[in-house]
Amino acid sequence: MPKMKAAVFVEKNRIVLEDKPIPEVGPLDALVRITTTTICGTDVHILKGEYPVAKGLTVGHEPVGIIEKLGSQVTGFKEGQRVIAGAITPSGHSNACMCGCSSQDGPDTKHGFKHIGGWKFGNTIDGSQAEYILVNDAQANLCVIPDGLSDTEVLMCPDIMSTGFSGAERGAVKIGDIVVVFALGPIGLCAVAGAKLLGATTIIGVDTVAARMDVAKKLGASHVIDFKQGDPVQQIMALTDGRGADVAIEALGTQGTFESCLRSLRPGGRLSSLGVYSNDLKIPLDAYAAGLGDIDIVSGLCPGGKERMRRLMEVVASGRVDLKPLVTHHYKLDQIEEAYDLFANQRDGVMKIAITP
Amino acid sequence: MPKMKAAVFVEKNRIVLEDKPIPEVGPLDALVRITTTTICGTDVHILKGEYPVAKGLTVGHEPVGIIEKLGSQVTGFKEGQRVIAGAITPSGHSNACMCGCSSQDGPDTKHGFKHIGGWKFGNTIDGSQAEYILVNDAQANLCVIPDGLSDTEVLMCPDIMSTGFSGAERGAVKIGDIVVVFALGPIGLCAVAGAKLLGATTIIGVDTVAARMDVAKKLGASHVIDFKQGDPVQQIMALTDGRGADVAIEALGTQGTFESCLRSLRPGGRLSSLGVYSNDLKIPLDAYAAGLGDIDIVSGLCPGGKERMRRLMEVVASGRVDLKPLVTHHYKLDQIEEAYDLFANQRDGVMKIAITP
Amino acid sequence: MPKMKAAVFVEKNRIVLEDKPIPEVGPLDALVRITTTTICGTDVHILKGEYPVAKGLTVGHEPVGIIEKLGSQVTGFKEGQRVIAGAITPSGHSNACMCGCSSQDGPDTKHGFKHIGGWKFGNTIDGSQAEYILVNDAQANLCVIPDGLSDTEVLMCPDIMSTGFSGAERGAVKIGDIVVVFALGPIGLCAVAGAKLLGATTIIGVDTVAARMDVAKKLGASHVIDFKQGDPVQQIMALTDGRGADVAIEALGTQGTFESCLRSLRPGGRLSSLGVYSNDLKIPLDAYAAGLGDIDIVSGLCPGGKERMRRLMEVVASGRVDLKPLVTHHYKLDQIEEAYDLFANQRDGVMKIAITP
Amino acid sequence: MPKMKAAVFVEKNRIVLEDKPIPEVGPLDALVRITTTTICGTDVHILKGEYPVAKGLTVGHEPVGIIEKLGSQVTGFKEGQRVIAGAITPSGHSNACMCGCSSQDGPDTKHGFKHIGGWKFGNTIDGSQAEYILVNDAQANLCVIPDGLSDTEVLMCPDIMSTGFSGAERGAVKIGDIVVVFALGPIGLCAVAGAKLLGATTIIGVDTVAARMDVAKKLGASHVIDFKQGDPVQQIMALTDGRGADVAIEALGTQGTFESCLRSLRPGGRLSSLGVYSNDLKIPLDAYAAGLGDIDIVSGLCPGGKERMRRLMEVVASGRVDLKPLVTHHYKLDQIEEAYDLFANQRDGVMKIAITP
Repeated sequence: MPKMKAAVFVEKNRIVLEDKPIPEVGPLDALVRITTTTICGTDVHILKGEYPVAKGLTVGHEPVGIIEKLGSQVTGFKEGQRVIAGAITPSGHSNACMCGCSSQDGPDTKHGFKHIGGWKFGNTIDGSQAEYILVNDAQANLCVIPDGLSDTEVLMCPDIMSTGFSGAERGAVKIGDIVVVFALGPIGLCAVAGAKLLGATTIIGVDTVAARMDVAKKLGASHVIDFKQGDPVQQIMALTDGRGADVAIEALGTQGTFESCLRSLRPGGRLSSLGVYSNDLKIPLDAYAAGLGDIDIVSGLCPGGKERMRRLMEVVASGRVDLKPLVTHHYKLDQIEEAYDLFANQRDGVMKIAITP
Repeated sequence: MPKMKAAVFVEKNRIVLEDKPIPEVGPLDALVRITTTTICGTDVHILKGEYPVAKGLTVGHEPVGIIEKLGSQVTGFKEGQRVIAGAITPSGHSNACMCGCSSQDGPDTKHGFKHIGGWKFGNTIDGSQAEYILVNDAQANLCVIPDGLSDTEVLMCPDIMSTGFSGAERGAVKIGDIVVVFALGPIGLCAVAGAKLLGATTIIGVDTVAARMDVAKKLGASHVIDFKQGDPVQQIMALTDGRGADVAIEALGTQGTFESCLRSLRPGGRLSSLGVYSNDLKIPLDAYAAGLGDIDIVSGLCPGGKERMRRLMEVVASGRVDLKPLVTHHYKLDQIEEAYDLFANQRDGVMKIAITP
Repeated sequence: MPKMKAAVFVEKNRIVLEDKPIPEVGPLDALVRITTTTICGTDVHILKGEYPVAKGLTVGHEPVGIIEKLGSQVTGFKEGQRVIAGAITPSGHSNACMCGCSSQDGPDTKHGFKHIGGWKFGNTIDGSQAEYILVNDAQANLCVIPDGLSDTEVLMCPDIMSTGFSGAERGAVKIGDIVVVFALGPIGLCAVAGAKLLGATTIIGVDTVAARMDVAKKLGASHVIDFKQGDPVQQIMALTDGRGADVAIEALGTQGTFESCLRSLRPGGRLSSLGVYSNDLKIPLDAYAAGLGDIDIVSGLCPGGKERMRRLMEVVASGRVDLKPLVTHHYKLDQIEEAYDLFANQRDGVMKIAITP
Repeated sequence: MPKMKAAVFVEKNRIVLEDKPIPEVGPLDALVRITTTTICGTDVHILKGEYPVAKGLTVGHEPVGIIEKLGSQVTGFKEGQRVIAGAITPSGHSNACMCGCSSQDGPDTKHGFKHIGGWKFGNTIDGSQAEYILVNDAQANLCVIPDGLSDTEVLMCPDIMSTGFSGAERGAVKIGDIVVVFALGPIGLCAVAGAKLLGATTIIGVDTVAARMDVAKKLGASHVIDFKQGDPVQQIMALTDGRGADVAIEALGTQGTFESCLRSLRPGGRLSSLGVYSNDLKIPLDAYAAGLGDIDIVSGLCPGGKERMRRLMEVVASGRVDLKPLVTHHYKLDQIEEAYDLFANQRDGVMKIAITP
């Protein structure tokens, strides 16, 4: 049985490169040879043991590669095509999928919903930080890369871009909106780009790292606020003549940013939450107008599936959003343990690392 | 190779019962033994040669039955379960399906949309007026019948109920709306029931057949209008103090009813079209306010898939809508040619005919 | 200057009936002679000093009466007409109003939003527990009572019905939904009725008072759960085969019910919050799937304005919802202090009290 | 009584500059001294007698000016402020306004809807092609111009920009959409800009005038098609690999463009109609998939009111859309008859003419 290299979760604080068998291809699967992948903040949660996965699982959920072999029931694709698949790989046929909630894709039991069930790669099945990945429900999830786009250009599509954009989409950003984005990591930066794509005219990014604030401006932020230079809520209120934001996007996953989002909103505003939280959240009574403020708090996992991937790659191909500046480092798969070390400790201004076998 | 009886389109004006092989079950299919099915107005269009299908095709798209055999890749169901499938059997994995437009389900080519592509049974693959039917993409389309519901009670779910309700849903009926439904055949009657389910408080049904108008009242019409007793638009305006309807549902497929719908709307109203038209339509300039009236004209094929079927059967099980009165006649499959004759000529007050093998 | 009786907030725990001048009618106002009004839970918060209002303010925000005098700029109404006005009386012309957020109606400054700004009666201007009330922005807020409806029949429209229904509307209840309503006070009962109006097929009411659970069944609950008979979340999961609710409506304003709502939802479900909270809220990490569960938490103040009132009275007139059983007691305005005592202490099975001058 | 110059409709083919009294200011009005206005295609319809208005009416509906005098009931503004008002000046308090349909603003009778009732200036009351205009319901309609924006920069906001953008908004353009715009006059050009603002990645403009096609590219068209170089539907299908557009925007008002829009759509697509038609429209059966194609045809009058105007001016202030290239000519009010002659005959590459008293 032929072998491949794969980054495997062994135990808390240990993700190591191991040899694993190249997987068998079932009728509905596709085997994709990875040409580029990357590490996500969620992978660091796994590394630290904060998010549990099975020992021996291959991690990673952002695959760019080439179709090596198609399952017998998969049609419309050809071996050798360059493809991506989303971090979320819905089946397409659960009840959740069939009512527009495919990120909560459940098993084919009576009801068919499961919390975070759409996220499979590097969570419940082997992931993308390897030489090969088996894509489940390939018919629903493979998406051919348009000619002329490099791996690096589409590397953000499977997760970061889909997530960040969904923050603006779920926030229902409208033409002329004031949008504030708390935390300008890769997801927050994509939320800035998404808010711009949907017609926001005032986009305020909040962070303290100069390099990130610079990228935010390139991606569409009209203003950036350094939260170390004063209470960010007060800065936002000053910038908006005391009005507050129509939409506030949380892109970090902490009580502080969640609460600042709430306090930054105008009455009737919308908090769109993207962060992965590690603790219970508190909704302060005053910031919530005791429940009478027409405030909506929306949240969710990034959308996946081939149609989502197609649209995101169209955004890249059209030149409307350029996320290459987010890819700050390049590593070989052989060096992935070093890459984790760099990324987990956020050294050297790292945003995203392209990993190539 | 074992044989079964099937109603087959032979040529214009000839649908006949023939022996056909019981189909082979592919990995993604389910073979369902039909226990009850019915004839739709669309089948009559096929019979008359007005809607083209391949010669030799088994017609019918409203299956109620028992799982006889499951494909090797289909999980979560058991042979012997009582099930229905929708008239529309989407794949779940085309681009159309993955962006919420599964009735226009296309092939797995680059773009994945096809006009009316979700309708397969009795259109592009063999249908339900037979002893057995092969359900494509069974994982996405089989839906188990809740205990305690008879075949007759769920017979309207696959098409008529889904279509009629979608007229109210696409019309975006709101609490307190005035809704008018033009034509009270089975679909119009289900549109009445759908408008009631969504909170309309004035529901005006238009027809001229007393029996249909009576059923409309049972299903939720607050008023019925006989179009032979005077211009229905004038009658509607009189009933609504000159205001007009928020939503007008077209349930016949003619220029007359389409145009009357438009003329029945208040400014800013919504025409929801369910009919299958046979001719070009005209939008009169005055009824359309020259394009400046904030009038929306929405249309579509009924939604299918197992989640839709589940919800419709819940409506039946909850007792909120009782469509048994629509089933006016019962025939054996052996007598299907007579059944077509009765139905096509709309004799004997026929609304829907239950066909049992 | 002619005088009238009015229930006035004097200080914590003292609302007393006093003589006040009948107000002058400005150009945009209408003076309405109250024929029936009622006491709301919010009024009890005011009585107890939990919600601050100016000393000397007339309380109450649910007016039914007769137009006594119209302001010079108010057209389309006649003195002597029976009318209601909503608890929320938006101006119609603030930026908030003009973007569909009229409950957060703000002043005519640059931005025009104010938290809870649409609620004026008995909050920022004199209210309805008096012989007369001055309706601000009368053109936007007076709504004529349809012939044949009694005061009692429309008494719930200004607040309770609008609030309860909005719980179902904001929850985006769909045909075939499972909806759970936590707490079956008047607002929760109206939420049950609203969920039914929008097509829910399983409606589960949670409370412990038998009389309220009985009314819930009359208004549309398919199931009622007594939270004293076991953990209500477990009871809901048992009733729904472990699936959970599509929509959970919070109708009390406590951490316990808020949290139980979250825990009752299916993945991707929607919490619609109606309660007025007195403390910070906690979102438990697990119930929120760490922010990745596609869970929306929506909230808001009840919609007001004359079009809303018109539609709610149409619901009553159509006979689709009968809220008379909620009016359990009748008092004269002269006895309003006793009425407050009864209502604040929830004695004698009181739900709502009709107050007549 | 002081006089002013005003362009008045006298009879078919005669709009002339006359002296009229400067209007009296009622309690709810504002008198605005016009500093810039323009001529719209609709005004040409009036001139030609194709759209009936009262003889003696001042025409024009695109006012930019300075508040000269405020009505006694108008607050939050100051005389001397630079303002615009929309072409549509809703009351804010009709039933139509209070349910989000303010362009069909009706009288304060029972129901409150009127076809095109929101359009008042130069239609049912005196308009903007004059030295002064009386703004009805000023509280709902005046919007202060942000510092730093010139008259020319905001001159498109009252009508052209609001209309064009609404074509994209009603079309529900999404990130990654393919949008086609038929006819690149000022409204079509604004529709291009609107589609870009909402995230479309392929925007195809159709016209034959090179100058307009050039402006379309500047405003966001990724492709332009000359309909004289071959059937535009075929060209669109070629550009989109046979898929068709998600949204087609009609911006001319003819059968040809309407029908080409329909034929350019993918199954399940959306036709957003902006044109003012002069004749009945035909929906070809095949292009409409006999009513089963999930095709929506939406239409409407441009949104007005001060919040809309505020947002549009924010778009200008943010630099996201620059419509100055649309203003090709400048005339004095004294020369307005010449300006009509130029504009009606579309000479000299005219797009929009700035008129200044």
